[in-house]
This record gives sequence, C-alpha cells and structure tokens, in this order.
Amino acid sequence: MSSAPLKIARLNANQADFNHHLDALLAWEGVSDKAVNERVEEIIAAVRQRGDAAVVEYTARFDALDASSMADLTLDRARLELALERISPEQRQALEVAAERVRSYHEHQRQDSWRYTEADGTVLGQKITPLDRVGLYVPGGKASYPSSVLMNAIPAKVAGVPEVVMVVPTPRGEINELVLAAACLAGVDRVFSIGGAQAVAALAYGTESVPQVDKIVGPGNIYVATAKRAVFGQVGIDMIAGPSEILVVCDGQTDPDWIAMDLFSQAEHDEDAQSILLSPDAAFLDAVEASLNKLLGSLERADMVRISLETRGALIKVESLDQACEIANRIAAEHLELSVADPEALLPKIRHAGAIFMGRHTPEALGDYCAGPNHVLPTSGTARFSSPLGVYDFQKRSSIIFCSPDGASELGKTASVLARGESLTAHARSAEYRIKG
Amino acid sequence: MSSAPLKIARLNANQADFNHHLDALLAWEGVSDKAVNERVEEIIAAVRQRGDAAVVEYTARFDALDASSMADLTLDRARLELALERISPEQRQALEVAAERVRSYHEHQRQDSWRYTEADGTVLGQKITPLDRVGLYVPGGKASYPSSVLMNAIPAKVAGVPEVVMVVPTPRGEINELVLAAACLAGVDRVFSIGGAQAVAALAYGTESVPQVDKIVGPGNIYVATAKRAVFGQVGIDMIAGPSEILVVCDGQTDPDWIAMDLFSQAEHDEDAQSILLSPDAAFLDAVEASLNKLLGSLERADMVRISLETRGALIKVESLDQACEIANRIAAEHLELSVADPEALLPKIRHAGAIFMGRHTPEALGDYCAGPNHVLPTSGTARFSSPLGVYDFQKRSSIIFCSPDGASELGKTASVLARGESLTAHARSAEYRIKG
Repeated sequence: MSSAPLKIARLNANQADFNHHLDALLAWEGVSDKAVNERVEEIIAAVRQRGDAAVVEYTARFDALDASSMADLTLDRARLELALERISPEQRQALEVAAERVRSYHEHQRQDSWRYTEADGTVLGQKITPLDRVGLYVPGGKASYPSSVLMNAIPAKVAGVPEVVMVVPTPRGEINELVLAAACLAGVDRVFSIGGAQAVAALAYGTESVPQVDKIVGPGNIYVATAKRAVFGQVGIDMIAGPSEILVVCDGQTDPDWIAMDLFSQAEHDEDAQSILLSPDAAFLDAVEASLNKLLGSLERADMVRISLETRGALIKVESLDQACEIANRIAAEHLELSVADPEALLPKIRHAGAIFMGRHTPEALGDYCAGPNHVLPTSGTARFSSPLGVYDFQKRSSIIFCSPDGASELGKTASVLARGESLTAHARSAEYRIKG
Repeated sequence: MSSAPLKIARLNANQADFNHHLDALLAWEGVSDKAVNERVEEIIAAVRQRGDAAVVEYTARFDALDASSMADLTLDRARLELALERISPEQRQALEVAAERVRSYHEHQRQDSWRYTEADGTVLGQKITPLDRVGLYVPGGKASYPSSVLMNAIPAKVAGVPEVVMVVPTPRGEINELVLAAACLAGVDRVFSIGGAQAVAALAYGTESVPQVDKIVGPGNIYVATAKRAVFGQVGIDMIAGPSEILVVCDGQTDPDWIAMDLFSQAEHDEDAQSILLSPDAAFLDAVEASLNKLLGSLERADMVRISLETRGALIKVESLDQACEIANRIAAEHLELSVADPEALLPKIRHAGAIFMGRHTPEALGDYCAGPNHVLPTSGTARFSSPLGVYDFQKRSSIIFCSPDGASELGKTASVLARGESLTAHARSAEYRIKG
C-alpha cells in the first residue's frame, strides 16, 4: 500500500474554467459497449429459447458453480430461516432494527385510491393496485449486501406485492448468510442463486423454474444493467444504476476527520465511486485533505479508495453556501450531505438530490443501513428526473371514469368536435351515440 | 373498399386451446430490429456531435422540409396564439373544455412533501420537487393529435415544471393548427417542428437551439421509441408505447351498435391496434358481429379498421363476468370498458388496466378527449407494472434524513454492525464517529 500523499483534485468554483472541470469530473457514460450488448442479447435469446437449461449452463460457466439443474440453484424458505439462526445475535438484532425502521418509513409512502363525483353524477378517480410479482436483483461476490435486500424487498412488501422473487449469484458457491437472513426478515418468497444477464432474462421471460415477474429492481454490474435495459418494456425496471456518489456541503465547522471518513465511505464502494466536498472555507478544505492523508492508510480498502478519490474525487472551494446549493443542483447527487449549522436554511434551495442528509450528525452511512429511507437512489445526475426506490415503484395506478348519462351526453359533444378535428370519426360516432336525442 | 363479410376471430374461453389462441392474439414484439437500432444510434451520434446542423439536415431529408437553420424550425408563443385564432370557435371551446377538465383531474394527483419527527428528535421525510425541463414528443402527419398535447403538457404544468418544450414534426411543412392551439392552451413554452430520432436526441443531449431536457414523454413511431430507449438514463422517459388496445367486457345488454363503434374507435388508430370483446352472451356476440358488418362500410377508415379487426381483433365468449375479469387481468389492457349494468361490482376484481371505463355511457372516446384522466396509457400488457401518464411523472422525490445527536448515536450502533458485516469499514467508522462516547 502506497503512502504517497493523496492527489485529490482541488478546484475553485470561481475559477474561469470551473464548469469545464466540473463537467469532466462528472462525465460518466454508463452506456454499454457493443461487445457487452451483443453478449447480453445472446444470453437473453438463449434463456428465452432454452429456459432453465440455459440459465444452469451460464451459471455453471460464469459463477464456476457445479450445478446440474435449477433445483441446485433454488433456496427455499427453510434455508433462509437457517441463515437467520447462523448469524450472530448482534447481527440479527441490527438487521431487525434496520428492517423495522425501513418498513416504518416506507409505510408513509403507501398511496390510496381516490375518487370524486361531479355535479352530474360522473365519477372520476384513480385506483391503486400492487404489482403481482417482483424480481429483486442482489449483486453477489464482494458487493453482496444484506442491506440491499432489505431496501429492495421491504417497499415491495409494504406495497402489497404478493410474491417477491430474489436472485443473487453465488460465485464459486459462496453463500452470504447475512444476505439470506435479510431476505428472510424482509419476507422474500423465493430465492434463486443465479445472477448476471441470465438471471435478468429468466425473471423477465420466465423459465420452467423461475416465474416471470412484472418488474425487476436492484443494482448490478454492466451485464445486469445492460440486460435490464434490454428487457425494459417486457417488464418494468427501476433504473440504470451508475457508480455511487456523495456530495458533501460543509460550512467548515464539522470535525474534518468526520468529513474525511464520510468521503471515504463512498470511495470504498468501487474505483468509479465519486466523493466531492464543497466548502466556502479554504482552510477547512486543507484540514480535510490532511485528514484524508492521515486516515487513508488505516482503511482496509485504501488502494481502492485512493484510486476513486484521485480519479473522481474533488475538494471544491465555493464562494458561499448559496453557490454550493447551485452546484449541488447541477450535480444532482445520489447522496447529498448538508453538514452545516442550519441545514433547514439550505433545504429549500436544493432541487435535485436522491437523499439529503442534514446536519453534522447525519452521515450517509446511517441512511445506507438503518435510518429508514431507501438506499437505492438515482445516480449519475438522474436525480434530476427520478426518485429513490419506494413503495410507489411497486404500485401502479388505473384511471377510473364512470360517466352518468347526463355527463356522457355533455362530454360526448366536446369529444365529437375534437375527434372530428383529428379525423377520427369512429371515435366521434362512438361518443355521439351517448349524446341524448 | 371491399364489402366482404368481416372475418373477425371468434373464440370461447372454455375451449381447450384458448390460452394458446389468446397468447397468439396478444403477441406483440415492440422490440426494434437491428437495422432500426443502428440507424437510430447513428442519428443520435450525429446530433450529439453536430447539434443543430445534424437536426436540420435530418429534418430536411426525412420531413421533406426546406429548412436551412433551426430558426426555420422554431415556433414561438406568438405563432401558437395565432393558431388559437385560426381554429373555429367551436374547436376552441372544445379544446378549452377538455384542457380545463384534464387540469382539474390531474390536480388531484399532485403530491406534497411530508416529514415526521421521532421521539429522539430525528426527522425523516420526503421532499417533492418538479422536474426543471420536460420534452414532449407529439407525432406528426396523420397521427398529429391536439388531444395528445393537452394530455402531455397539462400534467407537467400541474406538477410545476417551469419549462415544457414540445417537438412535433411537420412533414412537407404541414402544420396542424389544432396542435399548436392545444400547445398554446396547455402552456407549452417552446415548440420545435422537428421529429423522429433526431428530435429525441436533440432533447436528450441539447443542441445550440434545443435545450436539454430532463425527461421526454409522448408516443411515436418505431424510430422514436427506439431513440427513447437509447437515451433512457441520460434523461427520463415515460414508456415504450406499443399499438393501442381496447378490451370491452359487456353483459350483453348494451346496444350492439354502440359496442361495435367502441371497437371501431380503437381499430381506426392503425392496422396493429387491437379491439377485443368479452361477453357471456353468445347471441350478443353475434349481434355485435352483425353491427360491425352493418357499420363497417360507413367508416372513413374502413380499410384500416378491417385489417386491424381481422388480424388482431376477437369476439370472445366467456363463461361469466368473473371469468371476463380474470382474462382482463391477464390481458392488462390499455383501455378496459366495463359495459355492464353494475360495473362497481366488477371493479374490485380488476387488478391490471391502464384506464377503466365504467358503464354503458362511458366509451373510451370520452376518456381519449375530455373526461379528465390521461389518455397516455400503458400498452401491450405493461399495465401490469406501469401507470397512466400523470403529475407524478413530472415530480420526483428526495429522501430527507436529519438525525439528532441522540438519534445518530443509536443508529450509529446498528449501522456499524451492518457495515462491518458487509466489510465496508469506512461506512462503519463514519457511523461510529457519531456514537456518543
């Protein structure tokens, strides 16, 4: 492990070429390359054609698993309960606390059907129903996270989804007991130890063993993301997740070691993860840089953190906290920490962020695990147009229209004029039949 | 125009091979072929590289327009107001009635931010914000519909989107005054007379003249759908729209001419449109078939309607209205008409449908134009997991977490255990800093 000083970018928001630097820093093309696309299309086609046989074959090959049938890749509820016994009591309690808090928060998101009646008796409304069956993708290997299981499965269950099917690859047969224990607590109904594009294809189209789902959620590598994009339309998907990011806005009064560790916590995810700090206090940026250098060597993932911070990290001097908010809106970060004395004063200025962590005592890590809100959040600036994973992702709406004879007669006249204006005369005549003579 | 008897499929839900027949009837692969994909990728790359120049060039070529710059393809608010003057008073009134009803319905969908405080002072919540800028795709040519403009733009404006940018191709320079008048009433801020993949690319990436948007909504042909799929992630999109469909469930007591015209109203959209009728009354199916034959010749789009009904339509005898509801859930139709005496009795059994038209006096055509709910609806069975276009498509959520020192201290303990279980020790240490000594 190198102990060379960390070379993290230092920028000033008032420098002439700042926008150019910021664009370069944020640039991230999540688009799959042609080779990945073709490979994924091939895998999807094989799974659609040969079902279980193709899934077993790819799993044996990619995950180095000695599986001869889907039965070898199926984990039943009893196996999940066994996992709950196997983990330590301390871990079990932590999972239970987290699950309960996540459930409680998400219950606030549940939406109800509504309707209203107009003067002529016409009823209009919106009916809310849960999806029938949802697929959860949980990454395997080094990124196999029990917290992801809670964050994906619990909102689906709160929404009322009757069947939640989880897939999690187990490379070389390595099973993560914490992941299975989390699945047990979250109420996951079935688990298959498969992953990659083959798992996405199996969930989207169904095989002899894997039931077809209506929506696939959860993060994954480039093959998983490409496969999700490819099956979008056949099933719903949540989002195309990019590398994780944190943006910290600090007034300079938080302990620099705390802020350094908050930046590290993002950078330890992977080499492409992004950690950026904005502060109007130049001396504080120096202090955080010193803390980064002081603490870096003590991290277990120091090499990865160094690469992440040196290639995608930045410490940025801003003119004011107002300017910090403007830049925060431009970045539309997945995680935004407002580590300032009065975060409520900044909140109205924040238009785009996946999750907003307010005050010095709210590090992102608390939200990642147990504060309650979801940790599946829009990345790469997509918070401009998308939302955290939530109960609303597992419910859908149907419009309700129930015209009274009087209402239909009046509406028929308007519809007739507009339909004829569009040369859709069968529409017009269908409406006109309901006009009273 | 042929006057041969209409050859529409007649099925019985109790016949042995019914599921097979139904699957064949519903089969629809909206997936673009390779040639379309490559063409679209090429167009997107050109627009990203050369901006306006590429857009102007493609528009000149595909829309046979003699445009030399984007200025020739820009319509300002004054031009929209002129359109409002040019249409007939009757049309203007109909558009105004429709716009007002659509606005009024969608106001019920507006969501508010919420928050709650826990015993230790920790605050959790959800902040709702509108998107900054939205792009509306409106098809041109024969499918240029003013009603689409109302249905796309009004929910965005109700959501509070400050800037709505519309694109509508004007092949051979044909401008639809009703479309522009609708844009004027709906509060569209800017209009470009461009279309196809080049318009989608311009909205997604921005050019010198076309501002980059955060989300693109609205239906389009295969090039538009393919381009939307390709830019998904860079911007949000609404859905990949397939051909339009209606499913009518009738108890046999509605005037068969009315039901025939309701089926026609869907079939007149295009040759791939789908109209299906379910009834437990075999004699009524005969009567509707007779009405279809009687009325077909009187339709302006009789040839298209015939192709649609003969290739994708069906009259299906069911055992009971309960069985009709089961089949309706399996189809998950875009438009579902419950043309029965007591539609409220069936409603709880319907899990999947884009919009539900209840009773004999609620033909789909009323919903298409002016009842109030949106006519942009999930097609091809995607109502299993998606919703009508709505205000919620133009708002997004940010999670709010504001831990009190006491709250952070308690949560820190749980987060620490879980983070260490995931080998994310920087996460753990970041949380542990907030545990009280």
